[in-house]
Amino acid sequence: MKNRREFIKKAALLSTLPATAALANTAKSKELFIHHVYFYLKQDSPENRAKLTEGLLKLSKVPTIRQFHIGEPASTTRSVIVRDYAISWMCFFDNLEEEEVYQAHPIHLKFIEDYSYLWSKVNVYDSVGPRR
Amino acid sequence: MKNRREFIKKAALLSTLPATAALANTAKSKELFIHHVYFYLKQDSPENRAKLTEGLLKLSKVPTIRQFHIGEPASTTRSVIVRDYAISWMCFFDNLEEEEVYQAHPIHLKFIEDYSYLWSKVNVYDSVGPRR
Repeated sequence: MKNRREFIKKAALLSTLPATAALANTAKSKELFIHHVYFYLKQDSPENRAKLTEGLLKLSKVPTIRQFHIGEPASTTRSVIVRDYAISWMCFFDNLEEEEVYQAHPIHLKFIEDYSYLWSKVNVYDSVGPRR
Repeated sequence: MKNRREFIKKAALLSTLPATAALANTAKSKELFIHHVYFYLKQDSPENRAKLTEGLLKLSKVPTIRQFHIGEPASTTRSVIVRDYAISWMCFFDNLEEEEVYQAHPIHLKFIEDYSYLWSKVNVYDSVGPRR
């Protein structure tokens, strides 16, 4: 009787293994959604770049953002390099749905309300691919 | 006497705090250099995107690359979104010098030699800012 109980216990345990492996696999092959925005300012100055950076730091609190970066054009100047923008804002999301949450999030709407007077244009690149 | 010893101990401890805080701050404020390339193909097809992706996976072995992502335009379509490219290649470096190592690395030169027949144009954005 005890042996049979042990057998059932082990069988039950084993039956959960494929599900666990499948789960691990899903986690591994998850997507990564990159939202990369290049801001062009109406009046490009160190002060206005600092103001926009201040706004982006507030924006970075949107909870679906997994990782973010705020940058300025590097000093690299090869002919293929675009460097006429003022501020680069890049953030990672787990998928498209999480980026949509960000777009509609009150923190994002408030950011646009408070800081959009600074920019004349944004170029946005949304790219999606496997997380590696 | 004991009180005085305690006071000296505490004072000594406190005097180390600014140095420790400064150190933590330095580690925290390290740069992050983003190299983001958007590829336009001579003949855009699933086969050619797959070939370029295969090349980029080889390219990703350059040892100064800290993190990379290979993507395609997401399904987002707002008017500010640029989605006419075929493949997005993004990689992180610790700084400009490490990106220069990548540019001149044999793996990079071999990638250009073997795969540049595929593309008609690249738009490159190099952005640098504090790692947060």
